[in-house]
Amino acid sequence: MKLYWSSTSPFVRKVVVSAHELGLSDRLETIQTRVAPSKPDPALLPYNPLGQLPTLVLDDGTVLYDSLVIIEYLDHLAGGAKLIPSSPERRIEELRLHALCNGFLDLLVQWRIESLKDTKQIALINAFNLKASKIWTNLEATVEGLAQQPFGLSSITLAIVAEYADFRFPKLGWREKYPALSNWHQSIQTRPSLASTRFFDSSKPQ
Amino acid sequence: MKLYWSSTSPFVRKVVVSAHELGLSDRLETIQTRVAPSKPDPALLPYNPLGQLPTLVLDDGTVLYDSLVIIEYLDHLAGGAKLIPSSPERRIEELRLHALCNGFLDLLVQWRIESLKDTKQIALINAFNLKASKIWTNLEATVEGLAQQPFGLSSITLAIVAEYADFRFPKLGWREKYPALSNWHQSIQTRPSLASTRFFDSSKPQ
Repeated sequence: MKLYWSSTSPFVRKVVVSAHELGLSDRLETIQTRVAPSKPDPALLPYNPLGQLPTLVLDDGTVLYDSLVIIEYLDHLAGGAKLIPSSPERRIEELRLHALCNGFLDLLVQWRIESLKDTKQIALINAFNLKASKIWTNLEATVEGLAQQPFGLSSITLAIVAEYADFRFPKLGWREKYPALSNWHQSIQTRPSLASTRFFDSSKPQ
Repeated sequence: MKLYWSSTSPFVRKVVVSAHELGLSDRLETIQTRVAPSKPDPALLPYNPLGQLPTLVLDDGTVLYDSLVIIEYLDHLAGGAKLIPSSPERRIEELRLHALCNGFLDLLVQWRIESLKDTKQIALINAFNLKASKIWTNLEATVEGLAQQPFGLSSITLAIVAEYADFRFPKLGWREKYPALSNWHQSIQTRPSLASTRFFDSSKPQ
């Protein structure tokens, strides 16, 4: 299976961490891809006309996206209900928490794009700040329950929120403000699926 | 159930059309809500810290988002596998096509936001144009197969793509360029779920 991949995309990393957790990572061949909202990759568009990462091309030519669809496919491939519960009630709650964490990743990516512009929209950055504080507070109250659950889709996405915030917003200081979240992340960060897939910026010297 | 709602949101409309198709629309109480990227609604944030529509609050206080999670919940409430197939292979294909149509809605919403700005990013608008032509072409080739399927999640989302394009991009002229899509939409547009939930701009006189 070929995965259109980038070392800085939190959505790609969800897939790679999931594949590790499912024991499928050696089946993924990664294709380094660089996309930005204004710069689609012409090599990716024939597979995914949205021009987005991650995109997975199966050996039979079937193309899958977005990250949630790919993870659901990999979970099925590994026997099912490993990362996403099968009972409807627990499944809906897992997908709701995933939607919160994934929406937070979307917000952080948009925030970063806005913050790199010469002319920033102050009202938009204020809205990102307000929503981020509401989301962190919600997650801080949720994480104790999460620690009792298997390390599945929503835990993976929350771990990536924490590491993406560290990677792209090192001055945010979230760990001091949200100690339960920080402690939870400390307790799971040595998992091989996370430790072997850290974010890095390939455009900078390592 | 209370649905945080707007007459112009394609993501809200996915939920409302799905509820109609499932015979659940009379269980939804809609709460008119106005959100923009720079203007979160303070009344919505306690329920959904992402500040996004749609958000569903169940009678027991459980809060659900995003649109896909809400639709999966409503489908379960109606007995299951009505709008999203249950067999893994067909389910993954349905979710992949939903991801394409839903990603197109995201693109169209962002395109509209950019087009309303005083200072537009030309490279970004060019990228929207390029991706949109690739997506339309992909959908034009897909729609014949879709017409053979039950009217489910991906059909609903594609119908909303067509009507959102007509609503917000009337000069795009997509119907002339993509006749199979236009014919498919003509064939399904009289469904009560669509006919009774059309987009309208409540800020303009009707």
